[in-house]
Amino acid sequence: MSTVIKGGTVVTADLTYVADVLVDGGRIAAIGPDLTGDTVLDAAGCYVMPGGIDPHTHLEMPFMGTYSADDFESGTRAALAGGTTMVVDFALPSPGQGLLDALKMWDNKATRAQCDYSFHMAVTWWGEQVFDEMEEVTRRGINTFKHFMAYKGALMVNDDELFASFSRVGDLGGIAMVHAENGDVVAELSARLLAAGNTGPEAHAYSRPTQVEGEATNRAIMIADMAGVPLYVVHTSCEESHEAIRRARMQGKRVWGEPLIQHLTLDESEYFNTDWDHAARRVMSPPFRGKQHQDSLWAGLQSGSLSVVATDHCAFTTDQKRTGMGDFTKIPNGTGGLQDRMPMLWTHGVGTGRLTPNEFVAVTSTNIAKILNCYPRKGAVLVGSDADLVVWDPAATKTISAATQESAIDYNVFEGQEVTGLPRYTLTRGRVAFADGAINPDPGHGQFVARAPKGAV
Amino acid sequence: MSTVIKGGTVVTADLTYVADVLVDGGRIAAIGPDLTGDTVLDAAGCYVMPGGIDPHTHLEMPFMGTYSADDFESGTRAALAGGTTMVVDFALPSPGQGLLDALKMWDNKATRAQCDYSFHMAVTWWGEQVFDEMEEVTRRGINTFKHFMAYKGALMVNDDELFASFSRVGDLGGIAMVHAENGDVVAELSARLLAAGNTGPEAHAYSRPTQVEGEATNRAIMIADMAGVPLYVVHTSCEESHEAIRRARMQGKRVWGEPLIQHLTLDESEYFNTDWDHAARRVMSPPFRGKQHQDSLWAGLQSGSLSVVATDHCAFTTDQKRTGMGDFTKIPNGTGGLQDRMPMLWTHGVGTGRLTPNEFVAVTSTNIAKILNCYPRKGAVLVGSDADLVVWDPAATKTISAATQESAIDYNVFEGQEVTGLPRYTLTRGRVAFADGAINPDPGHGQFVARAPKGAV
Amino acid sequence: MSTVIKGGTVVTADLTYVADVLVDGGRIAAIGPDLTGDTVLDAAGCYVMPGGIDPHTHLEMPFMGTYSADDFESGTRAALAGGTTMVVDFALPSPGQGLLDALKMWDNKATRAQCDYSFHMAVTWWGEQVFDEMEEVTRRGINTFKHFMAYKGALMVNDDELFASFSRVGDLGGIAMVHAENGDVVAELSARLLAAGNTGPEAHAYSRPTQVEGEATNRAIMIADMAGVPLYVVHTSCEESHEAIRRARMQGKRVWGEPLIQHLTLDESEYFNTDWDHAARRVMSPPFRGKQHQDSLWAGLQSGSLSVVATDHCAFTTDQKRTGMGDFTKIPNGTGGLQDRMPMLWTHGVGTGRLTPNEFVAVTSTNIAKILNCYPRKGAVLVGSDADLVVWDPAATKTISAATQESAIDYNVFEGQEVTGLPRYTLTRGRVAFADGAINPDPGHGQFVARAPKGAV
Amino acid sequence: MSTVIKGGTVVTADLTYVADVLVDGGRIAAIGPDLTGDTVLDAAGCYVMPGGIDPHTHLEMPFMGTYSADDFESGTRAALAGGTTMVVDFALPSPGQGLLDALKMWDNKATRAQCDYSFHMAVTWWGEQVFDEMEEVTRRGINTFKHFMAYKGALMVNDDELFASFSRVGDLGGIAMVHAENGDVVAELSARLLAAGNTGPEAHAYSRPTQVEGEATNRAIMIADMAGVPLYVVHTSCEESHEAIRRARMQGKRVWGEPLIQHLTLDESEYFNTDWDHAARRVMSPPFRGKQHQDSLWAGLQSGSLSVVATDHCAFTTDQKRTGMGDFTKIPNGTGGLQDRMPMLWTHGVGTGRLTPNEFVAVTSTNIAKILNCYPRKGAVLVGSDADLVVWDPAATKTISAATQESAIDYNVFEGQEVTGLPRYTLTRGRVAFADGAINPDPGHGQFVARAPKGAV
Ligand SMILES: [Zn+2]
Ligand SMILES: [Zn+2]
Ligand SMILES: [Zn+2]
Ligand SMILES: [Zn+2]
Ligand SMILES: [Zn+2]
Ligand SMILES: [Zn+2]
Ligand SMILES: [Zn+2]
Ligand SMILES: [Zn+2]
Repeated sequence: MSTVIKGGTVVTADLTYVADVLVDGGRIAAIGPDLTGDTVLDAAGCYVMPGGIDPHTHLEMPFMGTYSADDFESGTRAALAGGTTMVVDFALPSPGQGLLDALKMWDNKATRAQCDYSFHMAVTWWGEQVFDEMEEVTRRGINTFKHFMAYKGALMVNDDELFASFSRVGDLGGIAMVHAENGDVVAELSARLLAAGNTGPEAHAYSRPTQVEGEATNRAIMIADMAGVPLYVVHTSCEESHEAIRRARMQGKRVWGEPLIQHLTLDESEYFNTDWDHAARRVMSPPFRGKQHQDSLWAGLQSGSLSVVATDHCAFTTDQKRTGMGDFTKIPNGTGGLQDRMPMLWTHGVGTGRLTPNEFVAVTSTNIAKILNCYPRKGAVLVGSDADLVVWDPAATKTISAATQESAIDYNVFEGQEVTGLPRYTLTRGRVAFADGAINPDPGHGQFVARAPKGAV
Repeated sequence: MSTVIKGGTVVTADLTYVADVLVDGGRIAAIGPDLTGDTVLDAAGCYVMPGGIDPHTHLEMPFMGTYSADDFESGTRAALAGGTTMVVDFALPSPGQGLLDALKMWDNKATRAQCDYSFHMAVTWWGEQVFDEMEEVTRRGINTFKHFMAYKGALMVNDDELFASFSRVGDLGGIAMVHAENGDVVAELSARLLAAGNTGPEAHAYSRPTQVEGEATNRAIMIADMAGVPLYVVHTSCEESHEAIRRARMQGKRVWGEPLIQHLTLDESEYFNTDWDHAARRVMSPPFRGKQHQDSLWAGLQSGSLSVVATDHCAFTTDQKRTGMGDFTKIPNGTGGLQDRMPMLWTHGVGTGRLTPNEFVAVTSTNIAKILNCYPRKGAVLVGSDADLVVWDPAATKTISAATQESAIDYNVFEGQEVTGLPRYTLTRGRVAFADGAINPDPGHGQFVARAPKGAV
Repeated sequence: MSTVIKGGTVVTADLTYVADVLVDGGRIAAIGPDLTGDTVLDAAGCYVMPGGIDPHTHLEMPFMGTYSADDFESGTRAALAGGTTMVVDFALPSPGQGLLDALKMWDNKATRAQCDYSFHMAVTWWGEQVFDEMEEVTRRGINTFKHFMAYKGALMVNDDELFASFSRVGDLGGIAMVHAENGDVVAELSARLLAAGNTGPEAHAYSRPTQVEGEATNRAIMIADMAGVPLYVVHTSCEESHEAIRRARMQGKRVWGEPLIQHLTLDESEYFNTDWDHAARRVMSPPFRGKQHQDSLWAGLQSGSLSVVATDHCAFTTDQKRTGMGDFTKIPNGTGGLQDRMPMLWTHGVGTGRLTPNEFVAVTSTNIAKILNCYPRKGAVLVGSDADLVVWDPAATKTISAATQESAIDYNVFEGQEVTGLPRYTLTRGRVAFADGAINPDPGHGQFVARAPKGAV
Repeated sequence: MSTVIKGGTVVTADLTYVADVLVDGGRIAAIGPDLTGDTVLDAAGCYVMPGGIDPHTHLEMPFMGTYSADDFESGTRAALAGGTTMVVDFALPSPGQGLLDALKMWDNKATRAQCDYSFHMAVTWWGEQVFDEMEEVTRRGINTFKHFMAYKGALMVNDDELFASFSRVGDLGGIAMVHAENGDVVAELSARLLAAGNTGPEAHAYSRPTQVEGEATNRAIMIADMAGVPLYVVHTSCEESHEAIRRARMQGKRVWGEPLIQHLTLDESEYFNTDWDHAARRVMSPPFRGKQHQDSLWAGLQSGSLSVVATDHCAFTTDQKRTGMGDFTKIPNGTGGLQDRMPMLWTHGVGTGRLTPNEFVAVTSTNIAKILNCYPRKGAVLVGSDADLVVWDPAATKTISAATQESAIDYNVFEGQEVTGLPRYTLTRGRVAFADGAINPDPGHGQFVARAPKGAV
């Protein structure tokens, strides 16, 4: 059963050309003129692009006795509806828990995934067991290790642990990742705000100023440099952090920054909304920033100093958010975005002339596939590549609304935004999972993507 | 008559994989395992890469009644012997000469080219005729217009002419190029040096300090920004110029910098050699710089703030150089490099770990093919692309010497340098022009490569 | 006839202490406790500071057959009413006019000055006469030479002229000054705006974007560096220009930047006022900028990368401004500010905590006195210094209004601004020229301040 | 008994003028022409300057059961012989020791000081007692609190302790100081070097790369910003640290950097000397750096982004240094410098044209007096100021040698350096302690200088 995508324009990170694309056995079988297949997908007026890869999600993430609302089933459903065909989630060991044990838990969560997925492994504590198991984790196809410089008393690791772990990652040929905020300072600022009676969601933003993120980014870069490991900075949200990344890259260091679609398009004024729910739903770390930081992030995508657009999709319902009424530090951190990343970035990036369509593909798919070392299996339109494709209609429009979204939560931080540029079809390994506005679900279709170490980045 | 390159590893700007490459009719006909063809080239132990593109040469360039010593025949022969399969030369109208008239002259020079070539058009004066003919020049496949901010009284144009021309280039969908040095300051410094009795080649370096280049780069960027045109800065030789480019890119501007292989590997101490000939042979503009500037250029290639490595190949014999004995301003400006660019960059870039093989391909071929809008016809290993290929033996070594070079001149600025990494075969549109150390010449094989405006860079 | 200022706190650029100040014979005769004199000025609750120095005024400046409305009489009257006790004006030779001839004209203008003054000499064209007369100008006590990089076809000089003049200034031990805007680009942008029908005052701002100022500043710095002369950049209005100055200073270069009080406190939104008069009255070059540029300027004053706050006082009446109705390029460039500089800076600088009182003195008086080489005769509270003093009442308030100003014009760009911090007394060489809100005029009291070359800055 | 300094030129941070200086009762009694006094010091051909202030010494510092070899007697003797009239030492509480208890110990050490002195208080651990006693420490005249970000397991404090302490210092109106190196990384790099058999003094330099200092500086700046306290960064030795300071100052933050005379004039090649003793004697933290870092530090002094030149004088004999044979981490950290700072800086700063004499005074005396809030009692030539003066002979020369030094140790890191510019007389509160090459000792003459909080910097 082959499928041919006919009449479209193939757009990859470095090419734009008219061609049909033939899909067979889950892979791209041919690219060229006048191809035929069992099923025909009409791509007239559309771009045929690599499906999006979202390298930063938290599906069914445990949180204070509950879980983030979108699991691998609904999360990947939202992804496919938005043109994203692969997600990378974080396996998060509890304090003292072994990495392999955690990995098993995340394997179990992912059984109903609708599109392919992979994992980053978090190093949330340090010890001989962690050191030892990192090798087996690498052997199982995970070459990225995440470290939290914030969330003191929970996930946070200190500088000596960072250095030890970064060195280990380097020796294994992997990439170190960081959530970069100075956890000590955040903890103290939070305590002071609470003590002063600032308990609302806006205090969350006050507790994590941009300086705190910039500092941690700068520190992680130095430690990675000393440890001899490439560094990937997740959710780069501000000029201070971007400046540190730029400065490092200018010295020839291998460092990448990942802005989120939220930080590119929403700003801190959201927290000043007097509706507690409205503000609390936008609580994430780092928080939304001022408009000058948005300008910095866009320029970074244009100049190449920032590499990847992600979502940090970690969806909590309004009910879950309300756990933090009266104490902003108890508001679950996270927002949705999986379905909206690609249309929002196209609208505000390509639609405004900031990004070319090729650059759009680069920052939503190809760059991260290369960094994660799963290119060109993913992130490419090449014969032999996985047929993770999106047929993109640049003229299609809709208004984003929670009422029509796939995500399990009851709101959407982009509610009311009009977007131009939407998927007409989304294919996951050749399977048409989204067509003409409707999902064609198949929980369990998604497979784990193993990623070998020592990618040549 | 097909040719198959067997047993190699294909290396492109973004992929590394084992495959045979089948060439037919001057194009790549197939890429994959177990291909067969009429002729077999053994690529065992080799990388199969896009042939190099040198976007900056001056072949048979008129100079004070004579011409630069390498013409399109010997220049492209040297290119092929070094793994380069396309050169882009500059059509230079004399004052008052029409662009089309100049283009015709350059067309005539190129008839004996051994590999493909294209032209940039220089805007050396300004007037209605120039304005008008730019459109026809664009129609003939030239989308890049070069401007000299130095060479006062000769090629130099002023800021108002730059602005007018840049605006015109922008309207035509082209790219503005600049030789960035402040010509007024260079002229005055030169006059002072001569007046003070500093007549030797080292005074050439004193007359063109890095500040002068940095200033002009910064100015060109501003004017391009105001005129709404992308800017390509040729022969970026120093931190000051690189800093201006970085700063512009950080603001989202479309600006590229082009370091030369000479500036990456040679330094100003060459001018202090007491042998007049030694120093004079290295006279070029900008001159070689201090070692900290080399560090800056390498970091730029690594981080992406600099995009392309070129040569500015403009070879003059020792006899021609001696025109300037007693007056450094009369020493013809230029050095060779076409045969040495790829091996020198591989040796000092890939061999030292600064660049990956993929990045080597990017900066010697793919990036410039994209910028010049001839990708993926050039700069790619894709089915349908021109079979401009180099089979690169990373283990082959030689010592660079004028005695064994293809260039017409009697010396080599890299004399005595040992390089590791050399072409085993070079193919130009499928024709094996270089094999196992020997050139297989065919003057006139080379064709003009037309490049349309409005490339999506 | 001695005067004693009793009960105040002396505030200088580097000291704050309680003392009386005794003035005799136009100079400070004693500083200390319990001084007595013929006249007593009550400084209780006040700071006793060096009088302000405004190094950038254009009084009775010729313009298209008329003159700027404030002459030395009214201009210095306004100065004294605002706590400023010295102004430095620009002698502007017409094309071809000799420097000494121009100086004579400006000497004549200044006869009715109420406070001391000095001149900068402008180099508006280049030739042997200019070169020669610069020496005599220096001998007459002028060590600062101003160059216009804008006003093409009028005052503007080109790069080779800049270099020649800068070199001459360096040889004479003087300081080069620049109005930094790229005149070629401004001229072309202006022509395009007019051609497109943008004739209103807002087009003035569009015609002189910040990039144009930044470029010229960067260029002037390079040329000064090559010529070996210190550089003073007048009316630094934006981050681009400030960045160039910072970068130069970081390399150890002797460069100073001068923000105006207007650019520190007003922004570009003024030009969008639909009242033509309102907008036109604010037309000056450089124009007002966006708020992020204000932040940059304030930070520069705090960190020391910017040195002096001036006014560029060049007042035109509404009638004069209306010359430019229908063609913004004909609107006379300039605004007032002499009376308002000190109160506005105190209010927005000291009152907000951005600047200490000592830093206020530094940027309004002492720094420029040192740069201009008239310190400690001016800019100091030292025994023997000229008794140019202001007794500053930090608690006094008023609302700025044209109705109550000394300036000859019919409006005030700060109209309606409430300021806290005003002079109680202003003394010019010991004479109390302003007391308790009223001017006590004495046209002709002011004297020329000669300033020797080779100041040790 | 009065003393008059006759015939000299007074040079302060902002003035240069010919005057006699009359000293009486330990203070400056008069400045002016033709003064007379009981004793006359001939200052013909000399500059009369504020005595130097060295804000960074470790006299009789406890170290592994012994003490640094120069105590307050010999250390201040060396200071006076070099033109320095005040030192500021660090009171270092042991872990768990109270601040007041430590202060008492340092008071006791200082009884034989020959010139005035003050203390910084180190915060080497954190707890309620420390928090509480900081107030009393402030009351006793100490407004500067030092924190070590390195020396893990000993003096180092973590980020939460830094934040808590910085906040307390801010509330008390003091200034936070940091030794900025990432202690975790230094500890790990040291362990690795030892494990790899790198036990020699050169490994000390390898264990503390510039990145490690730059990171810690950047972190301290962020924490100080969040805590709302000015920050003083001791021994700024490299571009990375300087860059962080510059960046902060550019944003209007109150941050100062202190290069040491050693880092300004010596470089890392000293550690490659094959004589173990030679290298070990130069072991200090931060270590000497490459020459490009020296350029950065000098430019910082010129542009004002760095404020103060100190010594970190902490002298150990060769015997003491040899404790670390076979294990570089056991080599006592520290070098001398008190006697050499002023002549070395004059020679390499003023003698080369990098600094004016006024700037020399600023960075050796006046700036730090202002920062530490003891200006104008110290750091000034004003009537009423302490007569801490140096009569500086700019033409005097000598060759630095351990054989002729005052310091108690048996070598000098500047051995063999020829200096031009030496004190002819040094006066400490009016007492002539050094005259014509000989010390006139008076142990115990020195007094503690109390410094109030809330200096207006
Ligand atoms: Zn995170
Ligand atoms: Zn996350
Ligand atoms: Zn050139
Ligand atoms: Zn060229
Ligand atoms: Zn101006
Ligand atoms: Zn002006
Ligand atoms: Zn230290
Ligand atoms: Zn120390």
